[in-house]
Amino acid sequence: MIPVVTSAHDHLLVRACRRQPVERTPVWFMRQAGRSLPEYRAARGSGSILEAIADPALAAELTLQPVRRYGVDAAILFSDIVVPLHAVGFGIDVVPGRGPVVAEPFTSAADLRRLGEFSPGEHAPYVAEAARLVVAELAGDVPLIGFAGAPFTVASYLVEGGPSRTFAKVKSLMHTDPPLWDALAARLADMATASLVAQVEAGAAVVQLFDSWAGCLSPADYARFALPATRAVVAHVATLGVPVIVFGVGTGELLGLMATSGAHVVGVDWRVPLDEARRRVGPGVAVQGNLDPAICVAPWEAVAASAREVLAQAGGAPGHIFNLGHGVLPETDPAVLCALVELVREESRPGAAAT
Amino acid sequence: MIPVVTSAHDHLLVRACRRQPVERTPVWFMRQAGRSLPEYRAARGSGSILEAIADPALAAELTLQPVRRYGVDAAILFSDIVVPLHAVGFGIDVVPGRGPVVAEPFTSAADLRRLGEFSPGEHAPYVAEAARLVVAELAGDVPLIGFAGAPFTVASYLVEGGPSRTFAKVKSLMHTDPPLWDALAARLADMATASLVAQVEAGAAVVQLFDSWAGCLSPADYARFALPATRAVVAHVATLGVPVIVFGVGTGELLGLMATSGAHVVGVDWRVPLDEARRRVGPGVAVQGNLDPAICVAPWEAVAASAREVLAQAGGAPGHIFNLGHGVLPETDPAVLCALVELVREESRPGAAAT
Repeated sequence: MIPVVTSAHDHLLVRACRRQPVERTPVWFMRQAGRSLPEYRAARGSGSILEAIADPALAAELTLQPVRRYGVDAAILFSDIVVPLHAVGFGIDVVPGRGPVVAEPFTSAADLRRLGEFSPGEHAPYVAEAARLVVAELAGDVPLIGFAGAPFTVASYLVEGGPSRTFAKVKSLMHTDPPLWDALAARLADMATASLVAQVEAGAAVVQLFDSWAGCLSPADYARFALPATRAVVAHVATLGVPVIVFGVGTGELLGLMATSGAHVVGVDWRVPLDEARRRVGPGVAVQGNLDPAICVAPWEAVAASAREVLAQAGGAPGHIFNLGHGVLPETDPAVLCALVELVREESRPGAAAT
Repeated sequence: MIPVVTSAHDHLLVRACRRQPVERTPVWFMRQAGRSLPEYRAARGSGSILEAIADPALAAELTLQPVRRYGVDAAILFSDIVVPLHAVGFGIDVVPGRGPVVAEPFTSAADLRRLGEFSPGEHAPYVAEAARLVVAELAGDVPLIGFAGAPFTVASYLVEGGPSRTFAKVKSLMHTDPPLWDALAARLADMATASLVAQVEAGAAVVQLFDSWAGCLSPADYARFALPATRAVVAHVATLGVPVIVFGVGTGELLGLMATSGAHVVGVDWRVPLDEARRRVGPGVAVQGNLDPAICVAPWEAVAASAREVLAQAGGAPGHIFNLGHGVLPETDPAVLCALVELVREESRPGAAAT
């Protein structure tokens, strides 16, 4: 059978990002490639995540597994927000069960010298290579989402030295030495931009900027210290003609500011009902979300009821991408995600029975 | 010198809780008794926190230290939200650097039997004894705030078995077996109520119910699964004639619901500007907060600017209690908190120079 090759750039997901008419709500899941899938655990083996990312064939396989299993409307490149930093030799690793850990955290202007310019083709050619393999395999049926960390969230690891609950060091740096902070954020914006440009050139039709921990900031701090660098990344990527999704957790008070980043879509966690989220981001920006990932380990009736509430609160398909409010939990049963995809496909078509 | 004994029940803090006229904004700090104070570290020594709480003279001393050092407008009883559970022998301990850990987590109806009725005088007489020692020493100059964990947050430890990032088990239990959840929440509400009644009888003039992790819940889940039990505690305690403060972090979307609990004051973390928080809780409820505790490790200029912003956003003293948005970080310099108290005292008086 000869596959019908359509352009991923006209795909349902891309149109939803642009708030154009869609036949139903697109659906994918953050961290859909991950420990919840037995085929992921089998393919990953015992190697580190950064080793898996640096192996284009393996990274492509891990990216494609959830598309095959769930029939989601997007592949998202299997990657990590610290890849560019690792690639330029800053001395950052991802420790299983803990997260990114930095050997010598960023503390002063001297550390800027350790953050050399990131050239994707030279430092991390495997990222674009994996993207090319995925795009070739998907053959235009499903779009690939490119992946990068937003400057604030990446900086939080650099400055804290690892995961943090209080973000006290990174907040202190911002307020103690704003010019140094701005220089660091600009450097990380350049890295994210370069990485996303390479992924788009390799065929990514949408990109998502993960500002996972921005929600720790007050609106005033976010506006002053995080938004400008995010805006720089979005502005550059948007010139390539692909929609940009900006996402973080606990960002209820930041949604309006995030919508001014230039992003086409703002990701929303489960704490903010989507009707309220839409009010905060305004009519010119789409929303993505926002089923509580923890609900997915509850009985199916509870999952279905919550998913229907998300669809109802989104108020119809245009400008809504169904997703979880954060990544899939490792203990999630893949059958539940399959059923969720089915539910969204069936119940988000115009004229489908309302709940 | 004979001290002037005033009634703590007419104190500035109590009047602010009731949105009555005050001469200036009262100020205290969550976790003001803690590792940030050298005298705390000296007095605590190497014993466990539950041992310190069970020693009334030590608990009273730890409660009083920050009143002496900072001149704050409230003492808060040195305690922990797991004290009643520990006292009835559920098998819960507080592990340094980790938090509460449960030997056999709550999983089924059979575990309700392990949650016997909590009789403060029998199981934890040291709590009221410490409160009495504190109240006698304060001699009416400064009110004592009683301390309890709200049912949802206490239940989260029981069900998860310890601190959690996802709260998947407790959310799953709620949705899997709502009657069992309701029974558990009701049992924990009874425990919190009994503990707070004993503290009020010992002289506490205000109480704070810590629902620290309620912010992990969607508004729908909070309304269905957390609010009813909190409401039961508040209703009982309010009949004793003392104001009730309800607090959690990341609760931006829950503030309106928390305000319907019957609480006189809703605590707000730093993510929501207080003018917006006031809008959400409505005119009948006071607000407490909300300086970012992480800002307190930044240079003083940044701390002062942020504190002035909090005062400005609160829009005047009536119905505002100045506090941090969460507990004092251990690395905080006590001199900064002293200066903060001074700033709030000076700049919140009517007619004080606006910023």
